[in-house]
Amino acid sequence: MRWDRPPLHEVAVTLPGWVAGAVDFDATYATDEARMRLAIRLARENIRRGTGGPFGAAVFERGTGRLVAVGMNGVVRLNNSTAHAEMLALQLAERRIASYSLAADGHPAHELFSSCAPCAMCLGAVLWSGVTRLVCGAAREDAERVRFDEGPVFAESYAYLRARGIEIAERVLRDEARAVLDEYAAMGGEVYNG
Amino acid sequence: MRWDRPPLHEVAVTLPGWVAGAVDFDATYATDEARMRLAIRLARENIRRGTGGPFGAAVFERGTGRLVAVGMNGVVRLNNSTAHAEMLALQLAERRIASYSLAADGHPAHELFSSCAPCAMCLGAVLWSGVTRLVCGAAREDAERVRFDEGPVFAESYAYLRARGIEIAERVLRDEARAVLDEYAAMGGEVYNG
Repeated sequence: MRWDRPPLHEVAVTLPGWVAGAVDFDATYATDEARMRLAIRLARENIRRGTGGPFGAAVFERGTGRLVAVGMNGVVRLNNSTAHAEMLALQLAERRIASYSLAADGHPAHELFSSCAPCAMCLGAVLWSGVTRLVCGAAREDAERVRFDEGPVFAESYAYLRARGIEIAERVLRDEARAVLDEYAAMGGEVYNG
Repeated sequence: MRWDRPPLHEVAVTLPGWVAGAVDFDATYATDEARMRLAIRLARENIRRGTGGPFGAAVFERGTGRLVAVGMNGVVRLNNSTAHAEMLALQLAERRIASYSLAADGHPAHELFSSCAPCAMCLGAVLWSGVTRLVCGAAREDAERVRFDEGPVFAESYAYLRARGIEIAERVLRDEARAVLDEYAAMGGEVYNG
């Protein structure tokens, strides 16, 4: 079966179609709570519309709160184990500013909001992205309680990022964020990182 | 300037054009050394052709040595901080077999060869990809010696993957792999994860 498929030279990492009509890129996201609520809403829409797992993320300009890019889990939809919410948001933000670093000269500082504490892959990606702040909603144990593995993330991992100048805030609107994880578990949603 | 660019809904993760003519997908890669030599050659071609940093990777079927997908660093070329060699190879392999898991039912076991020990992001991605074996060429300190940061990877990180059934072999053809890092440094190549 698999032999039918030739080697590939391109992968498209896309957002689902509903995003264009559901996200207001011109709104002001003035506070941490407003920014986190967007990340959580993306997670919730994603599971209710059947386009992925219970995780949402968004990149903002720190000072203005201008929304730069959004992401939501697309592992199953895209057949791509790297298509976590944070990965999509960071890649789309970098493409939008046309730089591999969100800390590039001539750009304002950026921050990443994630509806859940990032897995090992995404925490590494945060470091390479150039964001200067990471804000998380649900905690690692909230994801694990509904059987998602978070991978090799340790207290030292967070310390490593902080030592490189990245501010990290945890458990912002944790209860609201956790509710999406629980809703997904109650739906019987697929746990692709079991 | 940046305000000219509308929000994006898609990112294309592509291989450079030279790959099609330089990689033989029908060859047999019978041994660990043959498989690692391909990963190292991809790294070397990448820097000599000016399409990225000194890192290459490839996914093989473990038993047959059939080549499934290749990747090479494309951070600067693609303006994408997640475009590490391992990430490209894993995503292309998953798309080729049309599954988010290389351990999916009906498929043979897969393994990832990387010309250098993976950074924190890529090590997390290895865990989610479903490969059952990781083989590395150059060591973390070889990358750090030419000023690449590898991120929060600890002995416990490797133990975490091994506990989940992933075999890991390190320093396979290390000297050949390190030579590409040194060649890149001698060229004055850009260190995007400095």
